[in-house]
Amino acid sequence: MSHTEDLTRYIANFVDELAKSGLTDVIISPGSRSTPLAMTFREHPEIKEWVILDERSAAFFGLGLAKQTNRPVALVCSSGTAAANYYPAIVEAHESRVPLIALTADRPHELRDVGAPQAIDQIKMYGSYVKSFHEMALPKSTAEMLNYARIRAARAVHEALSGNPGPVHLNFPFQEPLIPDFTLKDLWGEPIREPYTRWHDGKRRLPESFINQLAERLASLQKGLFVCGPQMDQDLAEAVTLLAENWGVPILADPLSLIRTGSHSTGNIIEGYDSFLRNEKIRAYLKPDYIIRFGAMPVSKAYLFFVKENQTALQFVVEQDAGYREPVGNPTEYIYADPVLFCSDLLEAGIISSSSDNDWLTTWKNFNSIAKKHLVKASVGSLTEGEAVKQLTDVIPNKSTFYVGNSMSIRDVDTFLMAGSKKLTLLANRGANGIDGIISSGLGAAASGNPVTLLLGDLSFFHDMNGLLAAKHYNLNITILVINNNGGGIFSFLPQFHHEKHFEVLFGTPLNIDFQKAIEMYGGSYHNPTDSSELKEMLLASYQEQGLSVIEVKTDRTENLHWHKELWTAIEEDILKLVVQ
Amino acid sequence: MSHTEDLTRYIANFVDELAKSGLTDVIISPGSRSTPLAMTFREHPEIKEWVILDERSAAFFGLGLAKQTNRPVALVCSSGTAAANYYPAIVEAHESRVPLIALTADRPHELRDVGAPQAIDQIKMYGSYVKSFHEMALPKSTAEMLNYARIRAARAVHEALSGNPGPVHLNFPFQEPLIPDFTLKDLWGEPIREPYTRWHDGKRRLPESFINQLAERLASLQKGLFVCGPQMDQDLAEAVTLLAENWGVPILADPLSLIRTGSHSTGNIIEGYDSFLRNEKIRAYLKPDYIIRFGAMPVSKAYLFFVKENQTALQFVVEQDAGYREPVGNPTEYIYADPVLFCSDLLEAGIISSSSDNDWLTTWKNFNSIAKKHLVKASVGSLTEGEAVKQLTDVIPNKSTFYVGNSMSIRDVDTFLMAGSKKLTLLANRGANGIDGIISSGLGAAASGNPVTLLLGDLSFFHDMNGLLAAKHYNLNITILVINNNGGGIFSFLPQFHHEKHFEVLFGTPLNIDFQKAIEMYGGSYHNPTDSSELKEMLLASYQEQGLSVIEVKTDRTENLHWHKELWTAIEEDILKLVVQ
Repeated sequence: MSHTEDLTRYIANFVDELAKSGLTDVIISPGSRSTPLAMTFREHPEIKEWVILDERSAAFFGLGLAKQTNRPVALVCSSGTAAANYYPAIVEAHESRVPLIALTADRPHELRDVGAPQAIDQIKMYGSYVKSFHEMALPKSTAEMLNYARIRAARAVHEALSGNPGPVHLNFPFQEPLIPDFTLKDLWGEPIREPYTRWHDGKRRLPESFINQLAERLASLQKGLFVCGPQMDQDLAEAVTLLAENWGVPILADPLSLIRTGSHSTGNIIEGYDSFLRNEKIRAYLKPDYIIRFGAMPVSKAYLFFVKENQTALQFVVEQDAGYREPVGNPTEYIYADPVLFCSDLLEAGIISSSSDNDWLTTWKNFNSIAKKHLVKASVGSLTEGEAVKQLTDVIPNKSTFYVGNSMSIRDVDTFLMAGSKKLTLLANRGANGIDGIISSGLGAAASGNPVTLLLGDLSFFHDMNGLLAAKHYNLNITILVINNNGGGIFSFLPQFHHEKHFEVLFGTPLNIDFQKAIEMYGGSYHNPTDSSELKEMLLASYQEQGLSVIEVKTDRTENLHWHKELWTAIEEDILKLVVQ
Repeated sequence: MSHTEDLTRYIANFVDELAKSGLTDVIISPGSRSTPLAMTFREHPEIKEWVILDERSAAFFGLGLAKQTNRPVALVCSSGTAAANYYPAIVEAHESRVPLIALTADRPHELRDVGAPQAIDQIKMYGSYVKSFHEMALPKSTAEMLNYARIRAARAVHEALSGNPGPVHLNFPFQEPLIPDFTLKDLWGEPIREPYTRWHDGKRRLPESFINQLAERLASLQKGLFVCGPQMDQDLAEAVTLLAENWGVPILADPLSLIRTGSHSTGNIIEGYDSFLRNEKIRAYLKPDYIIRFGAMPVSKAYLFFVKENQTALQFVVEQDAGYREPVGNPTEYIYADPVLFCSDLLEAGIISSSSDNDWLTTWKNFNSIAKKHLVKASVGSLTEGEAVKQLTDVIPNKSTFYVGNSMSIRDVDTFLMAGSKKLTLLANRGANGIDGIISSGLGAAASGNPVTLLLGDLSFFHDMNGLLAAKHYNLNITILVINNNGGGIFSFLPQFHHEKHFEVLFGTPLNIDFQKAIEMYGGSYHNPTDSSELKEMLLASYQEQGLSVIEVKTDRTENLHWHKELWTAIEEDILKLVVQ
């Protein structure tokens, strides 16, 4: 077997098995050492390739696409710092459980740690942030080694998806010459119809006896509360709302729970909790007997205070497979079971919770109505940050994706996204909550073909401006709403705000740059509304356009701080009237 | 002791000891968890802070500043993916031996791995790329813990600098509240004049008996060759050129050896070797008896072929402290000794090498003269890539810094930078040879106050465009020459070039964007010369200006390929006339 035949068949079998295992997309960053992978991916008829130069953006693009599709996405880069640029997205994928398959090309062993150019130590370079690492063998095309290549491809896909999804890393040593020969007969291996290996993953489910016992324990308590934090299972909404209505339990639904809006029943959903749980007296008035949480901790800091003050309530955290996500440190019972099965099993237990203490549910609903009345009321004319987000949630199209930036953006969406029947896929990078890679993540979601609206702040926009190249290059369909308060708006809400000597330099950090120039460079259309109705028109117009539309709303950090505080105070005051009675 | 006093004194003592140990600059990326470090650094009277939002750029900025000053530079960031963005520059610092001190703020232990926001596993997150990692204790202000903080600061500086310099990593757990109290008495500790700890590092030196023996062995051989690869010791030039002239040995000097140009004698320097060693016959004609290499492997691929074909020559690699940088795999003797001492010791041995075979030196000099004649000759009018680099090397100011991008840029500088008396500090990121972070690296060098010219290609320019914000924010003095061949020009020199189906998409990767818009966004002046004399004028004008000047030379990848090949062929043909005789 020649070197080139070894190389070609080995990689072709590997790539073909990825496709057979369900991989549909690969993000390739240019380089020489990765030539065998890059060319073979591009040659494969069933895999779509996206070429993105900046590897940091490339990995976040893959992350967004994987989040949107719930399918693993492969990343291909050359040796050297290229692979190090994947790190931020790998970390985020680990924390937020997104299936990514990083395929890094490497120098062969004889060129490692000998001062050869572009050779760095890539073995386990993502540390504990990947679910698995494997150093691939040098290409060989014996039957045994082609099977090995297929099995490793299939395992990579399975490992990325199984249990809690996450990133995996395969490192490929390649000797020169690097160019495959695609004229070889049976390039993609024997015409196998089926994948070489398959996995059949059972779901965790608790025994009936336990479920019945638990249902009885809960039925004996008056005040139950379901909390749905960020999670990706599209089927949870139906299951958990059904149980909540059957039991008469309110659901605090984080915007990223995929439960706040949709075609399921949203009658028990309390979406305004972040506004009214800011008040200590209101929190004290709403003491639950038990809390069952699905998904990660909600975004709301007010909810965090609420949980901390309710240490004596019975508390349950549901995890589909594994993991520990309970930052408060309360006594807690952990339910490791598929959340959808867990809900339907509890429902089938047929024991109606006596939290048919109707007052409990009614109180939450009343407080929520008061909050919503204030939140929905338009602050006529002036285009504050909250107002911009309100307008956006009004006009964002049904069945579209709403990608939300971190920092103020996700908090404003938490405040202003009202429960409703609009089917929205809400996505955000809430694993590590970074302000990096947000544009690329949104564009990755758009690469699935679904229309995407991306909301983010100016610092996030700046951090990943390179990501915009993909929008231009692939003419991706995206509306980006940038809230530009010229710096780190969220810091105005923290104690650092009161330290004038250091604040602007270390925290405010105004950029003072004109994004319009960058947007034009990337062929996007640029809009700068000055009031609410203009914003609305521009958003609606953008949904009729193809390609990149960027709408920039310029706001003032201090005005924003006061606007939010006034709104929260008004809500608290109205609700406190009921509490004091 | 209150929490705030513990926090304040602990960090103040830490930062003060960094300053006492010689740290002068810190690069801070905004965040909340890092508040104690950020505010204290800014408060310290002897440390200058640079605030850079994008942590990837921030770390490369620190790298460039550290390279320029040969002093360690500290990096401060918040918890989460912020720290992961440092990875590319940390890898580069490791490979190219640059002292960086990464100070990452972290959530305290009770908030780790419990699903708390922005908490990722930062323990040893840079793997084997840092010389040392230490998880700092929680802040306490007992005498013992303040001493500990001081010692850890001093150790970090020493570890970053000692032996082969490189990055170190300290991780700081911080509990809230995070704001120090700078009104405390004796904030910076007892008025200690001296550093709390000091290190006195001896240099490696070989015994006289060994030196004499070696000098005798070499003296018995006819054809010696010194090779100086990339290295950072400003004193080597004097020592190695003195020895070379005394022994009559030619020196092949990489542009990054800091030996090609300067006030030392450059009589024996052969700078054109990359051009004429491309030819196999010429290589065969120039077989050396021994090679002594200082620094890393030179950039030149032609030299690599030359070494590979001279396995039987006696070969020495000199390392100041440790490391293994011999990618060819030849039988080699490793000299672990300070290179300057090694040269002066050999000189003092007083044994004149009989490579007073004058023909040997003369032949190299003659070949070099022929190459130079072609290289210096202006290709009148048309502004090719090589021509642009030639113009730049002509007009770049004495005593300035020349930061060179990877890929084609460093190769063109290798080709066209002629030996001379101009004192230039040549810098490049040749550890991992990435195209990332180059703008920030150049700006970091400029932050030292030295005027900087940065040469790079369009892909590198794009990759780190975010870096330009620092130029605007701090009004840094830099001239950037971008060679824009709209894509990956270097790939045209590789076999991939002949695979039309995949070439442009996977390797050519044209950006098709107009950099002028970005440059204007960052307040730079933009210039676009169309011929050599215009370029020269614009370069000269830029050296009279303050701030950011960007000169973009638009070229064609294919034309560039042919231009280089024609030049090399002309040189080979002329030299071969002498070889055949």
